[in-house]
Amino acid sequence: MNTVINLPSNNLLKLIKQAHLKSKKHHKQGKFVYPFGNGKADGNAGMRDLLGGKGAGLAEMSAIGLPVPPGFTITTEVCTFFNKNSGQYPSGLDADVAKALSTVEKLTGARFGNARRPLLVSVRSGARASMPGMMDTVLNLGLNDATVGGLATQSGDPRFAYDSYRRFIQMFADVVMGIDHHHFEDILQRHKTVCGLSLDTDLSATDWQDVIMEYKMKIREEAGKDFPQDPHMQLWDAIAAVFRSWSNARAVTYRKLHNISHDWGTAVNVQAMVFGNMGDDSATGVAFSRDPATGENTLYGEYLVNAQGEDVVAGIRTPQQITVAGKISHRSKLPAMEEVMPEVFQELNTVRHTLEKHYGDMQDIEFTVQRGKLYMLQTRVGKRTARAAMKIACDMVDEGVITKDQAVMRVDPKSLNQLLHPMLDPKAERRVIARGLPASPGAASGYIVFSADEAERLAHLGEKVILCRVETSPEDIHGMHAAAGIITTRGGMTSHAAVVARGMGRPCVAGASEISIDYETRKMNVRGVELSEGDTVTLDGGSGELMSGCVPTIEPELPGDFTRLMGWADERRKLGVLANADTPSDCRKALQLGAEGVGLCRTEHMFFDAGRIIAVREMILADTQEGRKKALEKVLPMQREDFAEIFRIMHGRPVTIRLLDPPLHEFLPHGEAEMNEVADAAGVDVEMVRERVIKVREVNPMLGHRGCRLGITFPEIYEMQTRAILEAAAEVGKENSTVVEVEIMIPFVSVEAEIRILKEMVDKMAEEIITEEQKVHYEVGTMIELPRAALNAGKIAHQASFFSFGTNDLTQTTFGLSRDDAGSFLPTYEKRGIIESDPFVHIDTEGVGELVRIAVERGRKSRPDLRLCLCGEHGGDAVSVDFCHEVGLDCVSCSPYRVPIARLAAAQAALNHSN
Amino acid sequence: MNTVINLPSNNLLKLIKQAHLKSKKHHKQGKFVYPFGNGKADGNAGMRDLLGGKGAGLAEMSAIGLPVPPGFTITTEVCTFFNKNSGQYPSGLDADVAKALSTVEKLTGARFGNARRPLLVSVRSGARASMPGMMDTVLNLGLNDATVGGLATQSGDPRFAYDSYRRFIQMFADVVMGIDHHHFEDILQRHKTVCGLSLDTDLSATDWQDVIMEYKMKIREEAGKDFPQDPHMQLWDAIAAVFRSWSNARAVTYRKLHNISHDWGTAVNVQAMVFGNMGDDSATGVAFSRDPATGENTLYGEYLVNAQGEDVVAGIRTPQQITVAGKISHRSKLPAMEEVMPEVFQELNTVRHTLEKHYGDMQDIEFTVQRGKLYMLQTRVGKRTARAAMKIACDMVDEGVITKDQAVMRVDPKSLNQLLHPMLDPKAERRVIARGLPASPGAASGYIVFSADEAERLAHLGEKVILCRVETSPEDIHGMHAAAGIITTRGGMTSHAAVVARGMGRPCVAGASEISIDYETRKMNVRGVELSEGDTVTLDGGSGELMSGCVPTIEPELPGDFTRLMGWADERRKLGVLANADTPSDCRKALQLGAEGVGLCRTEHMFFDAGRIIAVREMILADTQEGRKKALEKVLPMQREDFAEIFRIMHGRPVTIRLLDPPLHEFLPHGEAEMNEVADAAGVDVEMVRERVIKVREVNPMLGHRGCRLGITFPEIYEMQTRAILEAAAEVGKENSTVVEVEIMIPFVSVEAEIRILKEMVDKMAEEIITEEQKVHYEVGTMIELPRAALNAGKIAHQASFFSFGTNDLTQTTFGLSRDDAGSFLPTYEKRGIIESDPFVHIDTEGVGELVRIAVERGRKSRPDLRLCLCGEHGGDAVSVDFCHEVGLDCVSCSPYRVPIARLAAAQAALNHSN
Repeated sequence: MNTVINLPSNNLLKLIKQAHLKSKKHHKQGKFVYPFGNGKADGNAGMRDLLGGKGAGLAEMSAIGLPVPPGFTITTEVCTFFNKNSGQYPSGLDADVAKALSTVEKLTGARFGNARRPLLVSVRSGARASMPGMMDTVLNLGLNDATVGGLATQSGDPRFAYDSYRRFIQMFADVVMGIDHHHFEDILQRHKTVCGLSLDTDLSATDWQDVIMEYKMKIREEAGKDFPQDPHMQLWDAIAAVFRSWSNARAVTYRKLHNISHDWGTAVNVQAMVFGNMGDDSATGVAFSRDPATGENTLYGEYLVNAQGEDVVAGIRTPQQITVAGKISHRSKLPAMEEVMPEVFQELNTVRHTLEKHYGDMQDIEFTVQRGKLYMLQTRVGKRTARAAMKIACDMVDEGVITKDQAVMRVDPKSLNQLLHPMLDPKAERRVIARGLPASPGAASGYIVFSADEAERLAHLGEKVILCRVETSPEDIHGMHAAAGIITTRGGMTSHAAVVARGMGRPCVAGASEISIDYETRKMNVRGVELSEGDTVTLDGGSGELMSGCVPTIEPELPGDFTRLMGWADERRKLGVLANADTPSDCRKALQLGAEGVGLCRTEHMFFDAGRIIAVREMILADTQEGRKKALEKVLPMQREDFAEIFRIMHGRPVTIRLLDPPLHEFLPHGEAEMNEVADAAGVDVEMVRERVIKVREVNPMLGHRGCRLGITFPEIYEMQTRAILEAAAEVGKENSTVVEVEIMIPFVSVEAEIRILKEMVDKMAEEIITEEQKVHYEVGTMIELPRAALNAGKIAHQASFFSFGTNDLTQTTFGLSRDDAGSFLPTYEKRGIIESDPFVHIDTEGVGELVRIAVERGRKSRPDLRLCLCGEHGGDAVSVDFCHEVGLDCVSCSPYRVPIARLAAAQAALNHSN
Repeated sequence: MNTVINLPSNNLLKLIKQAHLKSKKHHKQGKFVYPFGNGKADGNAGMRDLLGGKGAGLAEMSAIGLPVPPGFTITTEVCTFFNKNSGQYPSGLDADVAKALSTVEKLTGARFGNARRPLLVSVRSGARASMPGMMDTVLNLGLNDATVGGLATQSGDPRFAYDSYRRFIQMFADVVMGIDHHHFEDILQRHKTVCGLSLDTDLSATDWQDVIMEYKMKIREEAGKDFPQDPHMQLWDAIAAVFRSWSNARAVTYRKLHNISHDWGTAVNVQAMVFGNMGDDSATGVAFSRDPATGENTLYGEYLVNAQGEDVVAGIRTPQQITVAGKISHRSKLPAMEEVMPEVFQELNTVRHTLEKHYGDMQDIEFTVQRGKLYMLQTRVGKRTARAAMKIACDMVDEGVITKDQAVMRVDPKSLNQLLHPMLDPKAERRVIARGLPASPGAASGYIVFSADEAERLAHLGEKVILCRVETSPEDIHGMHAAAGIITTRGGMTSHAAVVARGMGRPCVAGASEISIDYETRKMNVRGVELSEGDTVTLDGGSGELMSGCVPTIEPELPGDFTRLMGWADERRKLGVLANADTPSDCRKALQLGAEGVGLCRTEHMFFDAGRIIAVREMILADTQEGRKKALEKVLPMQREDFAEIFRIMHGRPVTIRLLDPPLHEFLPHGEAEMNEVADAAGVDVEMVRERVIKVREVNPMLGHRGCRLGITFPEIYEMQTRAILEAAAEVGKENSTVVEVEIMIPFVSVEAEIRILKEMVDKMAEEIITEEQKVHYEVGTMIELPRAALNAGKIAHQASFFSFGTNDLTQTTFGLSRDDAGSFLPTYEKRGIIESDPFVHIDTEGVGELVRIAVERGRKSRPDLRLCLCGEHGGDAVSVDFCHEVGLDCVSCSPYRVPIARLAAAQAALNHSN
């Protein structure tokens, strides 16, 4: 889902364009600080790169007259400068900050450090892309032993003032001074125990004053210096801490997972404080302008009465629903904001419409109500599930808010995975053991684990795990990424777990409060039932249910919005989308999901069939051509029947069949029993089989005797396969009303002569087998999967009607990187940013991509009608599909489930590159 | 040696240039036949491509007035046409041939098919490059039942006439009609037995007439048709047979071995017959204008009295020496031509001077003496040993015949191998068991084998073999190539075995007539001593001695000519030549052979030392950084001492050290004992060692965790190596009067960040270790051995002071070709011409070479002073060195013994590309 936020909506694009001249004027060299407030702003929504998402949103909201507490944004350029110059600031920054601060003072009528009417500010990070919870924030800044009195007087609530002060101290100590927050929790806990109090709200102003004293002593003890009383020193220390937090380990990991550049930097937003914890007429909340799970056009969100902003996101208190409808659907017992603060609710609803109309997309907003007055603190494009994204896009087209082009751009292709993959069978028995909030849709089964590290460890071993936590924090990101699903016992729909899980596309049940987890014993208890680490559970993030055992799954039904949107995508895309399909059932699935043909049918997969593997092994281990031929004759009728069925299913659509590719030793018998089987079948001594097994083994099988090298040295193998293909085509061509379109693909070509020799073989055999009445059209092409083939594409194209880029192997050879062995260093490379992303996931445009570009150019030059396709796993990756469009390929081919992803990505690529 | 003939001498180049306008005029479209004779010729020496070497030589000799029997050449273009059009000829050819034939008739006063004065011709192949014995020849063509009488009358020798006729029939039947010659040998043998005759010369004219009748019957029986009586039909059949013989298996193999293009085709030379077998005043012979073994400036050759041309080359009779000096040095008992035919000898000596002056190079000539009159039948540049090539080149410079540039071009770099490699220790005991002719210099020890097939089989298994044959024929080529040395019991210095062995650079002792070989029992007997297949012998091709057992070798002394010629080469070359040297002794050898520094010092070779391997294994198998560090500390002082010694030896010359490159598992312990050793050294359980061994193993180690990937993931390894290098440099820098030049090379880089990170590490360590007084200059560079590195050379050059192309690995990745596994298909690929040559021997210019070209361009663009070197095995291959020069590299690095080859090849490249 996360890339949605990197695709600005088209209304936003318009705003950006309008803002461009303005921003050019405003963003003069050396302008580091952008004030906002009072219906005005120096910045605007188009300046996301410079002001970060939060800063740009605050500026835009302020400019269109929404109630935003005044403040200013220090640009991301300052962050970059700061990090490059070991913590130095550009000259002039201090003067700019001072000036902006004094404007805030004027607008609020308060003064920074003034004991009577103190100005308090928040200091928040805000990068170009949202990185929830990754960087640091300081609230209530400006409080000290003197100003806390002013706050007490002004608010008329000393208890609130001292609580705010101690919160500030705690946060400042943690974020700025690096003192672990548990020290302060311990002090608070001890105080409560001594005084016999149980809740924070039980503490009086005096209690808080005592706590504050202890906090300050602890700081001196831990840091060796005092908590700073000078608000300006507080401010500059906090700014520096936020800039530094861009480079903390959590943030770096997050960026790696979400393909966010480390160079962008964060902005810092300094803004006048408003308080949601000034009593029961105060509140704080987050909301979406539509339901982010279903896409329903209704205000959707949660709030907490008498709380500060971070309390909602942190998931410490279970929040209340904003609407009555939400309260009912979530079976919440707490009153909705619609009931408690109807006027504020109305105002918020108006803001929702204003923002949606203004931005042309669903918004994710943060607000605070201070003594009945609504303040907007953030707006940004809201993350949503794939299903919601579909519905919102289609609805907004119907509402006339966006165009179909825009709608196509609104759905992250990768997110379609959520819709396409199997869901729990509704008819299957569900032994529901607990319920929570349906925080992120999808179903998953796996072993229970209770720590992120264990989740990661088991996932690396190939296990599916369900991560169960009381609540999650940014430290758990790696485990959440590794898990198949996530359960928390605390927190709401906007808790850390819920937001992150939706972003990652992981199913999540949040706030399943019936469960109690014991991290120590690695057990959890639900209504008396005990589950241990390693037990299997199933969770349904769409219903919020947790079930014991593994519940069977079925194919999901696709919503109507899916069909509409994919139709729009198909009208827009230039790239054909084919499927990698080796079996009849693959082919059926591929057609159902919109594939236009088979781009890669791997014949070797048919060889592994239990009924055939013995004959195949006999063939490999034969020492003579006769021996091989004898074995191949057993395989021929089986392969012919496979191909015939595929041709029938594909009914005239192109079917690209790759002749045998992998090294023979992949088919070798392993144990004694298998060797005996082969010896029996071939009628030879088992000793001979053993010798041949040793002989056929290779040091680097990836670079060994495979692909067309087999076809050249053991011509009978490719002859058998070609015969099976052509005879099957001839057979189906006789039955069929349409022409059978066969594309025979020669793998692992490195020199022109290879394809020339093998094409001659195919042509000769076709002449013998295919007659005119049989309605068969065949072509011969090649895989381009070796650097030499790419470089010599001009020559190879003389022999080939089509190229199919095998970017898996091309990545292996271009990088000198064995996919099987890369696990020992590739994760380190990603973590340290040595490579931007795993080149097997997103195509490496600078190396592999350059070879593709060269091959396209040279191939087309010598054969203008050359057909160009990509059939590696990159064919189903949106980033790589964009590259394929850009470089001018004709089609991509990917696994059936990824076909819709490729279709949508291809449409987005066409739209992206149309300007 | 063979490529010498592909490098036309510079005088010849001048001739070619002079001839260019002439030939342009003469070679009009559709001119297929070039007559020569009577002091004139349509063709000339410059038309080798069109007329073949033989045809061009005949034309040139005729034009400069040498006695050449008249004839004409049908061009190679006709051959190409013939082979492309299934045996059709271009239209107009028949008329051209008829016209040329009638000119020959006029010049000889004879007529084709005329019974009284019949014209007889030879029909011989002649390609652009010499392919001795590979294609077919027909002599005495024009004889039939009628014309044989005319020949008898004219020669006054009916016995001669019928002998000639039967020779013609036999040759024609074999070459044109495809009837095996053993049939005819059987008939002749039977006739001799019946008549009680033992020698061919015992047969009378009537005997030959009987034999001829039986020959003709045998032909009818075998071919189902009669031997053709029509001389025109004979002629056209023979021409077709010669053209077809271009594609016979022997010729194809020969071309493959000698890098001759299959596209060139052969010319056909039709020439009036002269007879060396018209009695004792007739003779035939071959000679060199200088001694081809030593280079002495003396006529050198052999002849046979009363014999036809092919008898000399076939090695059937042991020939006589031409000069008295030759007779003495070969201990021949037969009289020299100088004694027997002093006038003809004088004329031949004059011809030798004329030809040498005209061509400016040593010539290999064929001649026939017919009744006292000398006829020249062929001249071409003579093959020679490396030693002779050196001497001839230097002598000709001194004689003012050629320039130093020309001298440098005259020696085949590859042939230097003959001079550089160890020779038999003159002080060692030699148990000489037989003597023969010193046919091709050099010494070799190995197992005796008696067949070419067995030689090839054992050579493939890595054994050294000595091929022992009565005589060799073109069918034995593959075995001669596979053998380390060759012995024959029959034939002279110009026999097939001798010529081919010199061409291949194999030591050869020819005509060791004391030896009798029994192919059946696979034994040979020398003066009562029996040797069996598999016994070890040593042969010295320089002395002609065969010894039992293995005689020890010593380093050869290089002749003064070598030093002179290499000096000229060094003045001319642009490429620097460094050596791949891992040890102090490698370094000493490299300096001795003229290396300018170390281009590649592979640190891993030092790891295999028996004293270190346990510590290295301990390091690899350590599970923690601490464990690795502990083991590395043991290795550090040893590596430091290695490097220090190398720096001392190289004394200020650059030393390029590559940090650890190969996959760790190359160092893994193999058996139980080794695992125990490691476990002991590391103080861990052997079970843990076993587990780690399994974990470290890779599927494709070539593409695995190696090179800088190790340096990044286990930084302590590269840190230790860098420390060892820099500390050693600092130590030697203190002692030394010159600056220590260290180049630290990072292997297996694919992305810029890798080299950036590792360069920072080196720089940091250098800052700590190197002080200004220490006279150390270091640089950091990278291997370019992956396609991605080549494509991203522009970026990588920002971090690297130098590139070194590792074309071994680059070939593996560009082709997707594991060197370890290629044996199962690469030989087939070469044999079938799918690849031109083994890309690990000669650099693949179209794939690997293109990547080098790209990297050079991009690297230099971003860093103009980037140093560019090649350090794969291609660095010592002349063809690849030429490429390196052309593409603009600064230097090549190769194994010490190949340094002179690289120096000479670099000079030739500079001269080749200077025009």
